[in-house]
Amino acid sequence: MENKLAELETRLAEIKDLESAAYVLHWDQNVYMPPGGAAARGRQIATLTRLGHEKMVAPDVGRLLDALQPYAESLPYDSDEAGLIRVARRLYEEKSRVPPQFTAEFYDHTAATLEVWKEARPVDDFAKVRPYLEKTLDLSRQYAGYFDYEHIADPLIGRPTQDPGMTVSIIRPLFAELRDQLVPLVQAITAKPPADDACLHQHFAEEEQWDFGIEVIKRVGYDLERGRQDKAPHPFTIEFSIGDVRITTRVDEHYLGSALFGTLHEAGHAMYEQGSRADFEGTPLAGGTSMGVHESQSRLWENLVGRSRGFWRHFYPKLQAVFPDQLANVTLDTFYRAINKVERSLLRVEADEVTYNLHVMLRFDFECQLLEGSLAVRDLPEAWRARMSADLGIAPPNDRDGVMQDIHWYTDYIGGMFQCYTLGNIMSAQFFDAALQAHPEIEGEMENGEFGTLHRWLIDNIYQHGHKFTAPELLEGVVGGPMRIAPYIHYLREKYGELYEL
Amino acid sequence: MENKLAELETRLAEIKDLESAAYVLHWDQNVYMPPGGAAARGRQIATLTRLGHEKMVAPDVGRLLDALQPYAESLPYDSDEAGLIRVARRLYEEKSRVPPQFTAEFYDHTAATLEVWKEARPVDDFAKVRPYLEKTLDLSRQYAGYFDYEHIADPLIGRPTQDPGMTVSIIRPLFAELRDQLVPLVQAITAKPPADDACLHQHFAEEEQWDFGIEVIKRVGYDLERGRQDKAPHPFTIEFSIGDVRITTRVDEHYLGSALFGTLHEAGHAMYEQGSRADFEGTPLAGGTSMGVHESQSRLWENLVGRSRGFWRHFYPKLQAVFPDQLANVTLDTFYRAINKVERSLLRVEADEVTYNLHVMLRFDFECQLLEGSLAVRDLPEAWRARMSADLGIAPPNDRDGVMQDIHWYTDYIGGMFQCYTLGNIMSAQFFDAALQAHPEIEGEMENGEFGTLHRWLIDNIYQHGHKFTAPELLEGVVGGPMRIAPYIHYLREKYGELYEL
Repeated sequence: MENKLAELETRLAEIKDLESAAYVLHWDQNVYMPPGGAAARGRQIATLTRLGHEKMVAPDVGRLLDALQPYAESLPYDSDEAGLIRVARRLYEEKSRVPPQFTAEFYDHTAATLEVWKEARPVDDFAKVRPYLEKTLDLSRQYAGYFDYEHIADPLIGRPTQDPGMTVSIIRPLFAELRDQLVPLVQAITAKPPADDACLHQHFAEEEQWDFGIEVIKRVGYDLERGRQDKAPHPFTIEFSIGDVRITTRVDEHYLGSALFGTLHEAGHAMYEQGSRADFEGTPLAGGTSMGVHESQSRLWENLVGRSRGFWRHFYPKLQAVFPDQLANVTLDTFYRAINKVERSLLRVEADEVTYNLHVMLRFDFECQLLEGSLAVRDLPEAWRARMSADLGIAPPNDRDGVMQDIHWYTDYIGGMFQCYTLGNIMSAQFFDAALQAHPEIEGEMENGEFGTLHRWLIDNIYQHGHKFTAPELLEGVVGGPMRIAPYIHYLREKYGELYEL
Repeated sequence: MENKLAELETRLAEIKDLESAAYVLHWDQNVYMPPGGAAARGRQIATLTRLGHEKMVAPDVGRLLDALQPYAESLPYDSDEAGLIRVARRLYEEKSRVPPQFTAEFYDHTAATLEVWKEARPVDDFAKVRPYLEKTLDLSRQYAGYFDYEHIADPLIGRPTQDPGMTVSIIRPLFAELRDQLVPLVQAITAKPPADDACLHQHFAEEEQWDFGIEVIKRVGYDLERGRQDKAPHPFTIEFSIGDVRITTRVDEHYLGSALFGTLHEAGHAMYEQGSRADFEGTPLAGGTSMGVHESQSRLWENLVGRSRGFWRHFYPKLQAVFPDQLANVTLDTFYRAINKVERSLLRVEADEVTYNLHVMLRFDFECQLLEGSLAVRDLPEAWRARMSADLGIAPPNDRDGVMQDIHWYTDYIGGMFQCYTLGNIMSAQFFDAALQAHPEIEGEMENGEFGTLHRWLIDNIYQHGHKFTAPELLEGVVGGPMRIAPYIHYLREKYGELYEL
């Protein structure tokens, strides 16, 4: 059995190398590649991806996995070997059930859709993308059909790169409960006088913003010996190995919040990837286990830590020293209120902590309804307006800032694309609570600019395990139970209750 | 036949994509990778290289090439199809004749040798590297043994990545003739008062040097829409596609010549790669045909153009404007003499245009003698001193600046590693002469900072052909004959005769 396992590991390492190489090419494409490289680069990435796919679905891999299955079942569930075989099987199943012709057709279709969306959105022409979106929906249903499922969205949600272990039956009741709590909370907050965030909307020189961001993420624990930050129009985190996890950011010289919180957000993702056990390198066990758990970490560092009063007790005097002209006369309290301003807005990506989940849940519900057939693509714009009015009290005056605002459906499946953001928020509070319970000193440390205890706890309880456990398994191990919205709601009520005197 | 050719092209494109991906990973490793990425990066590059190798030597490729051979022979020699099959066969032969176990053993050995050299060189301990170098020589002989040859160095010289088409019987008489001319020329020059290059050894701020270099290479024709320049400790040019050919440079704030001519040198390499016919993209026909022709282009732009009086008539006032404190009181003539200073020196990489080839030919002759068995590794240090004294009139006081100075033998084969530099110099003069003969206006244009006619001529006659013709074939087509040293010697005599009043 050891021989078979070693052979599986060799094959998986080769596949991982092809995937990591594709990531390097993708990173370069987004940060440094000259325009002339685009055509060949597309071809090169496609070749690496195709070769990795071919190697994953090779019949030998299937035979190895079958041969190893009884062995895996004889091992403790939490052993590395059982974990490796389990994760490898998940990857193999997903790739081998979906016919290559389907994948090729889907990629061609989404490439075309993306181009049409790029043209249609600025001129607010939903009719133009509608037939493409209808075909995307058909293809998304077809994808689901390659798997067994309880709800048609489950195979899309459970893709190995999305949220394995999560299903509509877990998510839907949680989201419904969360919505019931959030809608009145937003109403209560927005009935109060708005926070003044003028202090964030001044001129802040790019280089100083960049350097301050680097200081902050080094301090919280992002290891620059095993990572780096570069500029990119759309910030992202990317992992080439456990020793090389990079982030990108963008700087807006007229709004301080963009780079600052974007950098912290990506550093949160990156710290999760950097925290995998070193001996998982080159195996599919390395890396974050799901998009939801990933978001729990990016948002934990960005929001629960990075938008807290304690955090800024330490960092605000340093920020004032970097930008004395802009901030010397702005109190910590004013700044804290500014970075936590809540308002009704149309765009998900610009939404604050409280309203954000209402945007996400709208999309999740629509994804489910579209896949079920209870909502038609042609009725989406109207449904969008109705739901926005009900949840947020405003409706988009057009489709550009309504149904066409997010890129996701125009470049990937309908289904499984949005739940991770709110799952991440919910889990971030559960994890943070557990950390504080284990180490009440964390809050005091944060006020002194110390994050080692929190970071260590996250590594020990979450990061080190990589892909070994799914999100539900991880929660069970860490908080001793399933997902619950109570800690997140408690966090929001405490924080915003005080801020808005509710 | 069209089907077979199309299948060959598909396979070659896949191999090229793997190779290009490995290049991107290599580039990143040298310019941006954080230290933590090193271990995994080595593994990733090795995987891509191995997969490319496996795909090249696949029996199907051999069968395709065999089946296509009669078809290739029925086509005109200069047709694209014949060229593609010819170049593909050369790559296939080289990779399939050398057993994979040998290649693995050789890589392991050179990796170990490099580490020993890094330790031995600073402490001047040749005895420490000697056994490694002896094994390198054995392995280099073994490599040659996999091929038919006239001289044992021929298979090493003719490797597809070195100088295909070149042999000892072509090179040796040329080099002997060149040495006979150069030794007295160096003696005559060094008998004269030395040029004063103090003006180059001042403080020149990095950013200004960088920006000036960029202006120069844009002006001569390096296309930054299809390339970019980054910093690296050891400058190199690297091609990811015809549309993405990058260079790196290093800046010495205390010596102006380093970045300036290094940048021009790499830009020369890059312009050659950028000049391949666009429809060669993704085929093995794209790129420079040999190391020798590559050097002819890097050195043509660096030396024949970049160290000429006409070039600086245009650029020197601009350089003075960038560095007024350092250069306002330095005349064009003084500057021109400084950048063309000739002196006896120990290190090849720091040698001037006139003495450089004596360093190279020493190594070429020793490579041949070592492979023949007429020189033993243990006698190298003494032979080095004797030859340096005879050719340059100085001998290294140690082995650090003698036999251990170049990295080549300590990281690759003995044989085929050095001839390209002098072949490049010889060909650079032949090509430049041919260009001037076709377009006498080139010299006047250069004085006005115009390089379009020269660049166009080089594209039409050399660059566009990529790998289609070997260096001897290319020369035959462009100058109507074989390699000749006369143009190069004429160039040196004219230029340095005037400079040193010979």
